[in-house]
Amino acid sequence: MISKPKPSVKKVVLAYSGGLDTSVIVPWLKENYGCEVVCFCSNVGQGDEDLTKLEKKAINSGASQLICHDLREELASDYIFPMLKAGAMYEHKYMLGTSVARPLIAKHLVEVAHEVGADAVAHGATGKGNDQVRFELTVMALDPRLKIIAPWREWDIRSREDAIAYAAKHNVPVTATIKSIYSRDSNLWHISHEGGILEDPWNEPEESMYQISTSPESAPDEPVYVEIEFETGNPVAVNGEKLSPAKIIEVLNAIGGAHGIGRADLVENRLVGMKSHGVYETPGGTILLFAHRELESLVLDGQTLHYKEMMAIKYAELTYNGLWFTPLHEALDAFVNSTQGPVTGTVRLKLYKGNIISAGRKSPFSLYREDFATFGQEDVYDQSDAEGFIHLFGLSLKVRALNGLPVSGLDMPKPDYSKFKRD
Amino acid sequence: MISKPKPSVKKVVLAYSGGLDTSVIVPWLKENYGCEVVCFCSNVGQGDEDLTKLEKKAINSGASQLICHDLREELASDYIFPMLKAGAMYEHKYMLGTSVARPLIAKHLVEVAHEVGADAVAHGATGKGNDQVRFELTVMALDPRLKIIAPWREWDIRSREDAIAYAAKHNVPVTATIKSIYSRDSNLWHISHEGGILEDPWNEPEESMYQISTSPESAPDEPVYVEIEFETGNPVAVNGEKLSPAKIIEVLNAIGGAHGIGRADLVENRLVGMKSHGVYETPGGTILLFAHRELESLVLDGQTLHYKEMMAIKYAELTYNGLWFTPLHEALDAFVNSTQGPVTGTVRLKLYKGNIISAGRKSPFSLYREDFATFGQEDVYDQSDAEGFIHLFGLSLKVRALNGLPVSGLDMPKPDYSKFKRD
Amino acid sequence: MISKPKPSVKKVVLAYSGGLDTSVIVPWLKENYGCEVVCFCSNVGQGDEDLTKLEKKAINSGASQLICHDLREELASDYIFPMLKAGAMYEHKYMLGTSVARPLIAKHLVEVAHEVGADAVAHGATGKGNDQVRFELTVMALDPRLKIIAPWREWDIRSREDAIAYAAKHNVPVTATIKSIYSRDSNLWHISHEGGILEDPWNEPEESMYQISTSPESAPDEPVYVEIEFETGNPVAVNGEKLSPAKIIEVLNAIGGAHGIGRADLVENRLVGMKSHGVYETPGGTILLFAHRELESLVLDGQTLHYKEMMAIKYAELTYNGLWFTPLHEALDAFVNSTQGPVTGTVRLKLYKGNIISAGRKSPFSLYREDFATFGQEDVYDQSDAEGFIHLFGLSLKVRALNGLPVSGLDMPKPDYSKFKRD
Amino acid sequence: MISKPKPSVKKVVLAYSGGLDTSVIVPWLKENYGCEVVCFCSNVGQGDEDLTKLEKKAINSGASQLICHDLREELASDYIFPMLKAGAMYEHKYMLGTSVARPLIAKHLVEVAHEVGADAVAHGATGKGNDQVRFELTVMALDPRLKIIAPWREWDIRSREDAIAYAAKHNVPVTATIKSIYSRDSNLWHISHEGGILEDPWNEPEESMYQISTSPESAPDEPVYVEIEFETGNPVAVNGEKLSPAKIIEVLNAIGGAHGIGRADLVENRLVGMKSHGVYETPGGTILLFAHRELESLVLDGQTLHYKEMMAIKYAELTYNGLWFTPLHEALDAFVNSTQGPVTGTVRLKLYKGNIISAGRKSPFSLYREDFATFGQEDVYDQSDAEGFIHLFGLSLKVRALNGLPVSGLDMPKPDYSKFKRD
Repeated sequence: MISKPKPSVKKVVLAYSGGLDTSVIVPWLKENYGCEVVCFCSNVGQGDEDLTKLEKKAINSGASQLICHDLREELASDYIFPMLKAGAMYEHKYMLGTSVARPLIAKHLVEVAHEVGADAVAHGATGKGNDQVRFELTVMALDPRLKIIAPWREWDIRSREDAIAYAAKHNVPVTATIKSIYSRDSNLWHISHEGGILEDPWNEPEESMYQISTSPESAPDEPVYVEIEFETGNPVAVNGEKLSPAKIIEVLNAIGGAHGIGRADLVENRLVGMKSHGVYETPGGTILLFAHRELESLVLDGQTLHYKEMMAIKYAELTYNGLWFTPLHEALDAFVNSTQGPVTGTVRLKLYKGNIISAGRKSPFSLYREDFATFGQEDVYDQSDAEGFIHLFGLSLKVRALNGLPVSGLDMPKPDYSKFKRD
Repeated sequence: MISKPKPSVKKVVLAYSGGLDTSVIVPWLKENYGCEVVCFCSNVGQGDEDLTKLEKKAINSGASQLICHDLREELASDYIFPMLKAGAMYEHKYMLGTSVARPLIAKHLVEVAHEVGADAVAHGATGKGNDQVRFELTVMALDPRLKIIAPWREWDIRSREDAIAYAAKHNVPVTATIKSIYSRDSNLWHISHEGGILEDPWNEPEESMYQISTSPESAPDEPVYVEIEFETGNPVAVNGEKLSPAKIIEVLNAIGGAHGIGRADLVENRLVGMKSHGVYETPGGTILLFAHRELESLVLDGQTLHYKEMMAIKYAELTYNGLWFTPLHEALDAFVNSTQGPVTGTVRLKLYKGNIISAGRKSPFSLYREDFATFGQEDVYDQSDAEGFIHLFGLSLKVRALNGLPVSGLDMPKPDYSKFKRD
Repeated sequence: MISKPKPSVKKVVLAYSGGLDTSVIVPWLKENYGCEVVCFCSNVGQGDEDLTKLEKKAINSGASQLICHDLREELASDYIFPMLKAGAMYEHKYMLGTSVARPLIAKHLVEVAHEVGADAVAHGATGKGNDQVRFELTVMALDPRLKIIAPWREWDIRSREDAIAYAAKHNVPVTATIKSIYSRDSNLWHISHEGGILEDPWNEPEESMYQISTSPESAPDEPVYVEIEFETGNPVAVNGEKLSPAKIIEVLNAIGGAHGIGRADLVENRLVGMKSHGVYETPGGTILLFAHRELESLVLDGQTLHYKEMMAIKYAELTYNGLWFTPLHEALDAFVNSTQGPVTGTVRLKLYKGNIISAGRKSPFSLYREDFATFGQEDVYDQSDAEGFIHLFGLSLKVRALNGLPVSGLDMPKPDYSKFKRD
Repeated sequence: MISKPKPSVKKVVLAYSGGLDTSVIVPWLKENYGCEVVCFCSNVGQGDEDLTKLEKKAINSGASQLICHDLREELASDYIFPMLKAGAMYEHKYMLGTSVARPLIAKHLVEVAHEVGADAVAHGATGKGNDQVRFELTVMALDPRLKIIAPWREWDIRSREDAIAYAAKHNVPVTATIKSIYSRDSNLWHISHEGGILEDPWNEPEESMYQISTSPESAPDEPVYVEIEFETGNPVAVNGEKLSPAKIIEVLNAIGGAHGIGRADLVENRLVGMKSHGVYETPGGTILLFAHRELESLVLDGQTLHYKEMMAIKYAELTYNGLWFTPLHEALDAFVNSTQGPVTGTVRLKLYKGNIISAGRKSPFSLYREDFATFGQEDVYDQSDAEGFIHLFGLSLKVRALNGLPVSGLDMPKPDYSKFKRD
């Protein structure tokens, strides 16, 4: 294999969190690329330390500058809500909290690079995960000429100890926090946990790992009711109070988290071909997706609903895989938006110790008609229509049988799994 | 509209439950078709009254004979388990308990018709629901020459009162039960509830409606752990005890029901074009589907999993629509079966007040590799591979941008929902 | 079966062609419904007789009025072109010429009904075909209170002879044309043929059946080249001349028809559950779809193209089934439109005796890069990237094999077709 | 980027064709890996030079041994026919001739490696194409421990001239053929052409490029009829003569090629992210796919047909991407096989100057019923059924309209393509 030469870089913008890894990257970039390093930090609701401290830390690590953007409302309205309207859920359980934030952060990274005249960007994602893909695909889509540096794929640092040693050698200030055994990512929508005892998927997660949700066991003994209002697919109010997109999520995180809502534990398929085991807490998101589906069940017709359900799988895949700024994603959004006109109304939910329980939904655009569905006297729906319907709906089955073909599914051959025996 | 002549019928087999409706159908068939009526009852786990009483009732209603089949194991192994392996779930919530039993009952109805030399079958499903379709499509597929009589689409009886009056007039013995306000269907897998206060989807269901599950609130304060073993996709043991398919469901119904598991409340799209509001209790089924997915997440690769997820939507649609004995359903089953070889292993779940919580999964065919997924020293997975992967995975985005095309998804035109405003 | 009472009707608008069937419907409606009959005829490019004669004929048949709309440009721009951009093709061969025109005609039927204050509409489609569904679904979607009369499903007329007798009895002027053995539908986009010797799908169609295309055999010995320009997915010019949508189709019909292009012969699945055998001539449409795909292959990325290809199947199904004015169709259109921005450019085709042969395509938004695709010196594409790509793309296969699972697809069990033997 | 060390290799099996590239690879492998080189050549119907000469050439190039396998029947029956039954076609035009052969060749490469005790395999595919992926994924799936060497991704040879110079320096015998400007791949199923004037997709291919098909212009003026018999989806006879799978393809290649059938010219999306322009000749394959679809149209019901059509897109994608030995591919095959029971019958086609024209299809399992489809007196199909069918099929549209929702698709907002203007 031919070794590629390092690209020449003058000024790089680093996606910076102030944690150990990105702190070490600052001097490493200067040492290895001889370039100026600008740090970019984004507030996506992760609840970090204060900015003044962060700036000081960045400068002390060797950065020329720290630039911060508050992305919470943009994240909520332009990234999370479109995904919510699409009904995206990865592999039945993962609400895509990290996936959906990466393109936004990378978009701002590119904007900052343009602003400060940088010729490269850098990030602290490892070479084994999905985030490197999400960051870099966004950069490639927005400015294909920007160089991308991913130190984890280049350097010799292999462990926390290596990183601390490197930091000490380069006088990088490292807060003496006790190392969490978990690798985490947190924002407005969720917090994720990987590593530690999760590495064996036969282990049950320990309660102390959880950060933003109470366990169902320790949640209040009294349920709480919450009413969420939607307008054309977007949540707009909680319990009658109109709130901004980010505020809605925050408020529902608080309520949901207190009632043990929104934990998910799954073995998932990373884009890079391996499986990993993660646990997620998404209290507000879990409530919102549930509520959105409740409302859709009332106002979307069956054909649209079923097709949209299928499409949501693709939507989740694209989002997970970092393909946010792509033509297919844009087209799926156009599809979804086209369906959301009537998704206006109110959903009432009962939250109790980890359960979200439907307690009513209503909409001015409801397609539910009590007079059709119920069993009393009728005028709109004529039961005798059903006979004709069934005759034609099943006609091809009848023809099949009349022509003497064997009935499909009767006496199906049993599959042979002999090659799948283990001693 | 041209009125069709009634077909001439000599002997009809009626799907008989012993309830008011099917009891009234017996004399109505004799009166209107002048034919002999054989009653067929099936034990699908609905927990009915004893057979001797039922036979007496049928004879007293005017039937020449009552024939009963115990279908519980056949239902579990040949209908429910294939559907479970497919991962079918209708509109996110309905586990298809009624849908999956209808083709089986109709298949036996046809077999009994052949056995007793009948030229027609009859059922008590109304003209507004899905069940008429499921019954009749199965009959059309299995014996297209059998006549089908659906009294609800023909007669003038429009209410419970009409039916009681008709029964009285024809000396049909009717048990003086207090009429439930709910319309229900029950079997091994589930019980469904429709009607009553559910007719307004803004209402919260009342606790007294539920039949086989405790409410989360009144479930035990202590969680219970349950271990389910699968072999090639089929559940085979609970807590280490090998059980027959039907037994597994029964055992899990008991455990799950006691812990408040498996309630679903949804507005659904009926095949016949209307929406209806139903509530379902499927304690064991909910646990089994959860467990099966846990195991699949460990042993199926991502591509197979995602495609199967999409296909499950179609599988659910076919099942819901009564298209069980069809070539497409058989082909979907072949697809599903092909994937289930490695779905062998054990899933551990914690059940607590309505929650199913993952507590571990393992399989001899697991594709999860701790050495790949974790962040320590590596030998199999080479992080530098990721760079090439990302370059090619995102190449079309890069070309798009290099060629000066606008970035997809940036500044998407906002949808215009003005036509969806209500005052 | 209960006979439904005829609805009371005061004034009906009939979709009128002037042919035998719809001519007979006029007096039949008056006789059977005692209502005023307004005839509506639409010019969808079928090339009918002149309007003055048609009006006279309608009045002589008993109509109070004939109203005509020229729908050619609307058909082309709002119905055919969206379908073309979607790439819809039914069952590999049928270009949906009849299907796409029905909703438009029905929409105008409803508009005329509103205009003249009618309370019903009527059409001459039979009870066995798809067109009744397409007409009536559109009416139901646009004005669900309008009554719909479908004489073919009601009356006793069963043959051409019956109809002629009825016409004679009611003094309806019938042109003494020799009855074609084929049932045909014709418009701007296509002509269809059913019946006659086509009723046996083992027969080869006879040359004399074809109406708007020369046979490949008798087409010119010299090929012709044609250049079609597209703007954002819509064809806008032929051989450098800007033309209106309908004109483009007409011009290409002439060229294509002369060169033997656009015949399709298929056994298709009708919505109403039966198979039928039809032959279609769609010269211009066949060229346009080919050309549109050529251009898309240049400007759409693979993911979008493949997803759109899958969606086109659904689009064709909806169009075929008359579900034009539905939320799902609108959403699919939104998806399609979102992809068509870069579908701008020129396609050059060689037409020769039934063949359409690519002779070049170009676009300012092309994603094809000669420097990437070819085999010389490279700078943008780095071959060594492929190694990492392959390692990760195939990682799950490698893990599967390393974990000792059997190789999928090797030694697959052979299917057992024994039940499909015929002597 | 970290340079990876070359793996240590003792004995390598090279997929060897005897052409310039693979001839040069032999000494290159020895020079760079210091290993023994065994050459493996496969007869997939490419019509190569004779084996004795090939063996001599391999030995003279430095190989220790040449091993040849005749794979024609295996290719036809286990690779091409399953794909044919699936109906796979990549991006509307490419019949996957190269794609489908690669996994087979790679499977034998692995088998030979096991046989001769090699620890590595090598191939001559470049780093820009799909074939490297197809070869290597198969090796990874079948034996993940085998090392894979892809010289084109490692060496400095960048052109034909470089290769000739390298050959001269290492005394490799190179036949003094005039270099074709095209890059080609040929087997039983097809021949592909890339490069040369095809590099500009605005160019029309030159007639001299084609190898196995006459141009439509120079094809005979008389059409030929061909009858193809299928049994359970597999072609088994041509014009009444039972033939082996490979023979059927050969015979149809000859007939089809002579009549100008089976040329396809397309810009396609490579898996590795770029577009390329290729021209394919697949005379027999084009006829077989057409014929197979004709038969399916007669014997498969609509739902199965439409779902299978959608699945064929995925099947083509998997095949194109080299994912042959994967669980998803196996599952798709299981689906397809499940549908092929009734695909037994005869298809008659007329071939004329590039056209394939349906001239009849018949099957003992036909679902076409003349008595249903035609317009005369009826007994099985009752037209009045259609009314009920339409009422329920369109019920949700009616409800939507009755509830006052806007009609979908009427007055759709026009898309804004302003960002897609070019000066």
